[in-house]
Amino acid sequence: MSFERSNIHAMQGYVPGEQPDEGDVIKLNTNENPYPAPPAVASVLSTIKVEDLRRYPPPTALDFRRAAARLHGLGPENVIPTNGGDELLRLAITTFANPGESVGIAVPGYSLYPVLTEIQACKLVSVPLDESWHLPADFAEQLNAAKARLAMLVNPHAPSGILTPVSRIAEIAGKFKGVLLVDEAYVDFVDADQHHDLVPLLRQYPNLLLLRTLSKGYSLAGLRFAYGLGCADLIAPIMFKTRDSYNTDLIAQRLATAAINAAADASKSWDKVRSERQSLCRELEKLQLTVIPSQSNFVLVTFARQHDAKSIYLALKQRRILVRYFDQERLRDKLRISIGTAEQNRLLLQNLREIMLL
Amino acid sequence: MSFERSNIHAMQGYVPGEQPDEGDVIKLNTNENPYPAPPAVASVLSTIKVEDLRRYPPPTALDFRRAAARLHGLGPENVIPTNGGDELLRLAITTFANPGESVGIAVPGYSLYPVLTEIQACKLVSVPLDESWHLPADFAEQLNAAKARLAMLVNPHAPSGILTPVSRIAEIAGKFKGVLLVDEAYVDFVDADQHHDLVPLLRQYPNLLLLRTLSKGYSLAGLRFAYGLGCADLIAPIMFKTRDSYNTDLIAQRLATAAINAAADASKSWDKVRSERQSLCRELEKLQLTVIPSQSNFVLVTFARQHDAKSIYLALKQRRILVRYFDQERLRDKLRISIGTAEQNRLLLQNLREIMLL
Repeated sequence: MSFERSNIHAMQGYVPGEQPDEGDVIKLNTNENPYPAPPAVASVLSTIKVEDLRRYPPPTALDFRRAAARLHGLGPENVIPTNGGDELLRLAITTFANPGESVGIAVPGYSLYPVLTEIQACKLVSVPLDESWHLPADFAEQLNAAKARLAMLVNPHAPSGILTPVSRIAEIAGKFKGVLLVDEAYVDFVDADQHHDLVPLLRQYPNLLLLRTLSKGYSLAGLRFAYGLGCADLIAPIMFKTRDSYNTDLIAQRLATAAINAAADASKSWDKVRSERQSLCRELEKLQLTVIPSQSNFVLVTFARQHDAKSIYLALKQRRILVRYFDQERLRDKLRISIGTAEQNRLLLQNLREIMLL
Repeated sequence: MSFERSNIHAMQGYVPGEQPDEGDVIKLNTNENPYPAPPAVASVLSTIKVEDLRRYPPPTALDFRRAAARLHGLGPENVIPTNGGDELLRLAITTFANPGESVGIAVPGYSLYPVLTEIQACKLVSVPLDESWHLPADFAEQLNAAKARLAMLVNPHAPSGILTPVSRIAEIAGKFKGVLLVDEAYVDFVDADQHHDLVPLLRQYPNLLLLRTLSKGYSLAGLRFAYGLGCADLIAPIMFKTRDSYNTDLIAQRLATAAINAAADASKSWDKVRSERQSLCRELEKLQLTVIPSQSNFVLVTFARQHDAKSIYLALKQRRILVRYFDQERLRDKLRISIGTAEQNRLLLQNLREIMLL
């Protein structure tokens, strides 16, 4: 006998990327930042006493919200902190989509979106990306036709790394009748000369919700801290109704505030990732591999027919190098490789050459 | 125009207890432990480096689950760690109750239960406690008659502090056809001579889910760490399907593991709370106040007609002593007062005497 709801019983859970315990693995499979967090985060960590944890944390995380608001030129009422980005994705569905209603996504995309949609017993509307991994011209129209209440979009896109520009996001937000959540998990790694910033759109589009995380750009995946940005009316029901009342803990709030206040420091790691991304792409292309130009901290690499992507993934794993293989449509001939340090990337290339017998 | 679901739009959010920023308040309003966490927690905190946070945390928190399993004589498959107890309550509803189905509670009780029930658009079945704050004899029958899929019960009860014994919980679990979640947030403070332990019931009742938290017993409310205990089939869908995949962060996992491994140390604070509870009750009774015998780390105090509970709450607040007043049925002539240190309790009594002009 099972007690869970029938939709929960029937569904498959999300499978996170491999997180090995061993420290000696070159880990290029879950898009962590290879460089350390800003030094200010360590300073704040050293000041935290266990006695501080005896009491409940500030329930609305006001210090963090003020810091994030300052960074983005918004007010604290435009900021909602969450226990990792996954929590904001879940909360968006909980808040905006009734069971039975539609939630839109672009495929391929982040495989958690369909899982969260199933938990809420919503209908999933999957809009395929075009041949070149871009959103179709009628993306908003397709969402509206399916009466989607919410659409979730990762930008820069994962796993392709392609960036949808501000003007196109604005166009979709303007046409789409539901809430458009743009998951900007990787936005810190967009080339500076793109001047890409969706935040100014928030004044114009009351249905636009941006997701930022400290996991990648601030090297704090282990801390579980992200935040949403949106107009006050969109943020308020999540902040004051659907969110667990103490969803972020005291240590996380303090470290996240320190990290955000040290964004200028963190951005030095973004520069290094961009520079390593460029070198790695150049070297991968020398191996006759096809690499989609990426604006993220990973690259999607296509292997020609004589090299089976899954076998290469397994061979790399045996050599203690983890990359990501997706057993799904359009991705079975590809590997997603996170950008590592110069030394990690050198070892990756050396091992790839050996495995591919070049 | 608002984008949220109509049930979210219509509902009121949970209002947490006051959490003042100032350190000089005597805080007896949200049932924190007045004594510090076990010293082992501080030792582990001092070993954590920001570099450890660069990677994702262990997604299944296996070290913690093993430690909690050891403490309770269970297996790791019987343990699910959550980001505070509130998360387990929410996950139980998400996992076991479809929108439109019934969720049962006893009233008065923890005011978050109805809020979570509304978010999931479930029907709330409120069963009133009897005159002496005990569950009615036909509690399980009432739940079954309403076809409740899940019932949530805090034991020891809040705000009365009354303990429902093991035999009665077993009887309810045996009769009730849904999942019985017993919220044991305050169980660490039950008198040792009661030999109260619900864990052995888990082998017999596949529908019993116990909630434990480190917030009170382990003095770690700021850390947001709790866990559920239940048979493997009940835990699995929460653990692998409905839970956010990285719901507890690395620091919280490590500190919680240290705390659980130091349960013997933590229990010294439980003894002190029990002893202070006894003294405080004696002194409150000397002030002609009615105090319900409590097995928790708070007492519910009834004021006679000439003393308005709300005015006393406000007068105490003005003197920088926070206690809890509930503006709801059966509670308007009462205050819930957390057990503080001997000195805090002395100051509370002194101020109460002055306010009541005794």
